[in-house]
Amino acid sequence: MKALVFQGTGRVAWQDVPDPAVKDAADAIVRVDAVTLCGTDLHIVKGDVPEVEPGRVLGHEAVGTVMETGGDVRAVRPGDRVLISCISSCGRCRFCREQRYGQCRGGGGWVLGHLIDGTQAEYVRVPFADLSVHPVPSGVDSFDAVLLADIFPTAYEVGVLNGAVRPGDTVVVVGAGPIGLAAITTARLYSPGRIIAVDLDESRLSAARRLGADATAAAGEEPEQLVADLTDGLGADVVMEAVGVPQTFEMCTRMVRPGGRVANIGVHGKPAALHLEDLWIKDVTLTTGLVDTSSTPMLLRMMAAGRLPTAELVTHRFELGQMEEAYDVFGSAARTGAIKVALGGPQHTAVDTAPATGTG
Amino acid sequence: MKALVFQGTGRVAWQDVPDPAVKDAADAIVRVDAVTLCGTDLHIVKGDVPEVEPGRVLGHEAVGTVMETGGDVRAVRPGDRVLISCISSCGRCRFCREQRYGQCRGGGGWVLGHLIDGTQAEYVRVPFADLSVHPVPSGVDSFDAVLLADIFPTAYEVGVLNGAVRPGDTVVVVGAGPIGLAAITTARLYSPGRIIAVDLDESRLSAARRLGADATAAAGEEPEQLVADLTDGLGADVVMEAVGVPQTFEMCTRMVRPGGRVANIGVHGKPAALHLEDLWIKDVTLTTGLVDTSSTPMLLRMMAAGRLPTAELVTHRFELGQMEEAYDVFGSAARTGAIKVALGGPQHTAVDTAPATGTG
Repeated sequence: MKALVFQGTGRVAWQDVPDPAVKDAADAIVRVDAVTLCGTDLHIVKGDVPEVEPGRVLGHEAVGTVMETGGDVRAVRPGDRVLISCISSCGRCRFCREQRYGQCRGGGGWVLGHLIDGTQAEYVRVPFADLSVHPVPSGVDSFDAVLLADIFPTAYEVGVLNGAVRPGDTVVVVGAGPIGLAAITTARLYSPGRIIAVDLDESRLSAARRLGADATAAAGEEPEQLVADLTDGLGADVVMEAVGVPQTFEMCTRMVRPGGRVANIGVHGKPAALHLEDLWIKDVTLTTGLVDTSSTPMLLRMMAAGRLPTAELVTHRFELGQMEEAYDVFGSAARTGAIKVALGGPQHTAVDTAPATGTG
Repeated sequence: MKALVFQGTGRVAWQDVPDPAVKDAADAIVRVDAVTLCGTDLHIVKGDVPEVEPGRVLGHEAVGTVMETGGDVRAVRPGDRVLISCISSCGRCRFCREQRYGQCRGGGGWVLGHLIDGTQAEYVRVPFADLSVHPVPSGVDSFDAVLLADIFPTAYEVGVLNGAVRPGDTVVVVGAGPIGLAAITTARLYSPGRIIAVDLDESRLSAARRLGADATAAAGEEPEQLVADLTDGLGADVVMEAVGVPQTFEMCTRMVRPGGRVANIGVHGKPAALHLEDLWIKDVTLTTGLVDTSSTPMLLRMMAAGRLPTAELVTHRFELGQMEEAYDVFGSAARTGAIKVALGGPQHTAVDTAPATGTG
């Protein structure tokens, strides 16, 4: 089959690789029908995620069709259309029992496109299939559902739930990329009083407004002053960091009100300064987290009910074989305006035979 | 009357000052029967709390006898023995209604010995007396109750409650001074599985063991390794910072398990490095806070029931007029072994006449 292979820092290629096969009785082999790229994939390509080895097939988000299952798999069977979660879960370890699947100690967690071959391929082997894929309700388009593989549960769990958004809250979302936009969308499930989006890019802020941000601030528009003005100088109830650099994290800690909450969603590569000389007295809660995808079944139901708008998010669509072009477009978002790019669908490269042998 | 007056950086004196008087209908004038010194007072003397002006009477912890009340005071009356909370609360602002008295916007919060004259005096004017003093149950010694003015509610609310200690948890308390020891004592109310105390001082660790710490680590004993060894390498469920310097805060963030909680109790003067490059993926919750003293009534009931051991904490006792000597002993804790010093009691300098005029 063809797959997008990490070749070492700065290089990826859409190339032939061995077909994946069931290696464990809990595995499923899934044909990839819709797949997306994640900012994390760009970090991997840049060399920021050193545990990803050259030769690895990237990708941790997809919707596909189950082709084959190992003998222990009970929840899905060949022919089922499933969402492949970015998080795999063994279901047996302490963390999985607490629904902290992201911290799985039994071989799951974030492994796809990281420690094992991922979803940017024609087929993928998914471990612990019973808990790691979700049947997609009929009526939900695969290209909508694929947004629930990572960005929606990440924004909802690590941003909205960790931030404990409540009705009437003033919520600030710093960073209006895919995660920030999904945070705005899912924060609205809790009826906040006001959502303020902050980003450098006016086109992303425009998307934020269409998705429900009540106010936006671009660079140079003094977002901290805007938040102060809108909250009688008190600060926001909840601030979400969806960028991943020290400057924006530190800005979040200045924007939060006494007793408020800062939910970090961003993936960081460097330490930030935590101004405890100001914060020690301020009753602030700061949270970090990797998504668990424990909310994915609920989000799928909300999507099936038409209550999760996603139309703004996929800006570019490609055939699966255009993977390298998709990386170029997604990696140049400032120029191309890409928010989320998706591949597959009607243009999917047909693969008629189920894989039977080979190593994944 | 006599009072301990801040004279500017580095200098305090026990000297004559005008008697306090009721200035507002919500005030109470309280004769100080038992009073303690706090590490924060030492910070003030060092000049670390610039909003404290020379001429200010210090102190925010005391037990005393109500001598006079303003016309609006209903909850206490002259003759009542009361605990003076370190936090005053207007009871009317948004934060007081949420029991976040520490963040009071109506003139309360931490004001005693900070923005208004405090408790290290023969008499003190307490604002918002109905919500800012607590009747002391009969049978509770004033020198025990005075520990509930600040350190016990601080340790309990900012450490144990913010840290969300649960039965079976491994709890690490970094810093075994008065606050850390009170954190150990109040953490035990939630039946943790194991409490580990960390401090530089062996005598404080000895007190920690007597109060219920199951394991201790002094400097050079590799506290991080101890925590790892006791938790199968996972880290502690809850880590409390009760020192207030960047090094100990950063150590706390390394000691916590995935999904765990770091509760900062320490008063900090400098930023710490927050290693988001490690923590972003770790599902960690960090909290800060000023005490609200919302738990003080419960702690008084527990003390009256004999369920709050405090005997280890007061190491030195003085007459009220020995205030300057008490500062010397408390300020040289490494040499004197002082944990908490208390003044007043049987040696209290009798003052027979209730104050009637003057400015506070």
